[in-house]
Amino acid sequence: MRGTVLYGPRDVRFEDLPDPRIFEPTDAVNRLAATCVCGSDLWPYRGIQTFPQPTAMGHEYCGVVEEVGKSVKSVRPGQFVIGSFFASDNTCPNCQIGYQSSCQHRVPVGGAQAPRLRVPLADGTLVPTPEVPTAEMVPSLLAVSDVLGTGWFAADAANVKPGSTVAVVGDGAVGLLGVLSAKQMGAGRIIAASRHEARQKLAREFGATDIVTERGDEGVERIKEMTKGVGADSVLECVGTQEAMMQSIRSARRGGYVSYVGVPHGVQLDGQELFFSHVHLHGGPAPVRRYLPELIDMVLKGKINPGSVFDLTLPLNRVAEGYRAMDERRAIKALLRPQEELK
Amino acid sequence: MRGTVLYGPRDVRFEDLPDPRIFEPTDAVNRLAATCVCGSDLWPYRGIQTFPQPTAMGHEYCGVVEEVGKSVKSVRPGQFVIGSFFASDNTCPNCQIGYQSSCQHRVPVGGAQAPRLRVPLADGTLVPTPEVPTAEMVPSLLAVSDVLGTGWFAADAANVKPGSTVAVVGDGAVGLLGVLSAKQMGAGRIIAASRHEARQKLAREFGATDIVTERGDEGVERIKEMTKGVGADSVLECVGTQEAMMQSIRSARRGGYVSYVGVPHGVQLDGQELFFSHVHLHGGPAPVRRYLPELIDMVLKGKINPGSVFDLTLPLNRVAEGYRAMDERRAIKALLRPQEELK
Repeated sequence: MRGTVLYGPRDVRFEDLPDPRIFEPTDAVNRLAATCVCGSDLWPYRGIQTFPQPTAMGHEYCGVVEEVGKSVKSVRPGQFVIGSFFASDNTCPNCQIGYQSSCQHRVPVGGAQAPRLRVPLADGTLVPTPEVPTAEMVPSLLAVSDVLGTGWFAADAANVKPGSTVAVVGDGAVGLLGVLSAKQMGAGRIIAASRHEARQKLAREFGATDIVTERGDEGVERIKEMTKGVGADSVLECVGTQEAMMQSIRSARRGGYVSYVGVPHGVQLDGQELFFSHVHLHGGPAPVRRYLPELIDMVLKGKINPGSVFDLTLPLNRVAEGYRAMDERRAIKALLRPQEELK
Repeated sequence: MRGTVLYGPRDVRFEDLPDPRIFEPTDAVNRLAATCVCGSDLWPYRGIQTFPQPTAMGHEYCGVVEEVGKSVKSVRPGQFVIGSFFASDNTCPNCQIGYQSSCQHRVPVGGAQAPRLRVPLADGTLVPTPEVPTAEMVPSLLAVSDVLGTGWFAADAANVKPGSTVAVVGDGAVGLLGVLSAKQMGAGRIIAASRHEARQKLAREFGATDIVTERGDEGVERIKEMTKGVGADSVLECVGTQEAMMQSIRSARRGGYVSYVGVPHGVQLDGQELFFSHVHLHGGPAPVRRYLPELIDMVLKGKINPGSVFDLTLPLNRVAEGYRAMDERRAIKALLRPQEELK
């Protein structure tokens, strides 16, 4: 098959790769209905995160099981399944408490920007839908795999409750779906930080009540003004930079909740500032697996339409254009269709 | 009157000071039944925290109201009252949500190592007891004013629940009362970190089930061993150093809760390590006012005896010896009796 390999900064190639196959009895191999480019793929793409060798890219996926290892019990060939970016056994103490992305036996999933994908620990990782969904459902089910699961965790980790005043820092796909998640959790007011018209529009569609265009400490001032000097109850940091983290901490009310869900790049927190901010801080790699059954159900019932974050759809062999469009912020998120490759 | 003034590192003087009086209509002046030396007083005493000029010391206090400003309504002369180290109006949005130590109008209380003390914002700050308590009750009521209130916040902020496995890093008075608080909240197992026999003994009296003598990453290893490699559900960081903070974060389970209640000195947190630790982090200056009514009630009913952290009692004019004994770790906490000065 052909799949996506990153060779170096801005050097994405779509090239021949070995066909995935069962290595471990706990593996499954899936034929993907759709995959996509993640905001986190842009860190190595931009050269901000280094990697030692050409790397098969992609960790968001949904599709049909083709083959399973002999010990796999909970999914079978022909089922449509969704998984997350860390394979997890879903039985260890960390999984049991809902932190599957810190599973004691976790395995990073890689190489999903391809027509087929091997998923380790299939029983713990993959969640099947009741039946094979229609093509229209696929983008939203794909979104559940990471970007919605991560936005949902951001809202959950920031303790969003009915009536909460919420601020979302970051207008990437995760931030936008953080807005959707906060809305679903009953937030009374949702302030989205964005300077881009298309993203502001989508934020409003997802439930944002206010838009802030200022960044950093000016953004903090605006959010403080909008909340009578108190700050937001919950702030979702969906970027991963020092500026976004400090904007988030300073925008929260005393005793408020700040979540952070993008891998921090160069972020250092001063203990004393954090201490006097009086915020709750929680984040990390989103335990998407915890939320999969609930989020899949919401998508299938038509309650949410997270697939609308995909504003660019490309055949898989044009994956490099997907990276370019997201890097240049021409696209929020690029969905890739592997159908041509599966013929 | 005579009171306590810190002139420089290890230079504590007991000397003539102006008598406290009502400055603002919201003030009260109290005659103190007891006061004490705080672990946090040792930072400037040791020269680790600088201060520009001689400073009147002390912020833990209980005693009888002598005089109130004309707008004070909720306390009156003759009542026995307990307050905290930040005066707060108890009505602003931060107070209403339970973060009185971040009151929008907060005033630090200082100069309590003296026979008399002016307390600003008396209505919001002081909580009266139903009647003037017996002398035996005074040490425990004094403890409520800061050190128990802070230990209680540490346990609360670390989400201690019935059955929780709790680790407490720091065997000062706050750490020891963090143990007592975790026990009251129903913790199933309480691991106290201490190398000092007298403190280990008190920790066990307060409810510790296990003692760890190792520090830093060795301490982390011990706590991990004791919890089947998972880590503690809740970790109370009661020191304020980089080593204690990192020991706490690394000792918590994924998805666990770390609280920190001592002002951090030189603490820097790496965003990426914190991210992958998956912990919840919360702390800050303890909002003792939130807990005062409940804790006073528990003391008066004899449910808890936090006053046993005071293992040294001195007449107020020997305050310098109290600092020395705590600095040299000969005493856990020194209670000061101002009775001689009140004659």
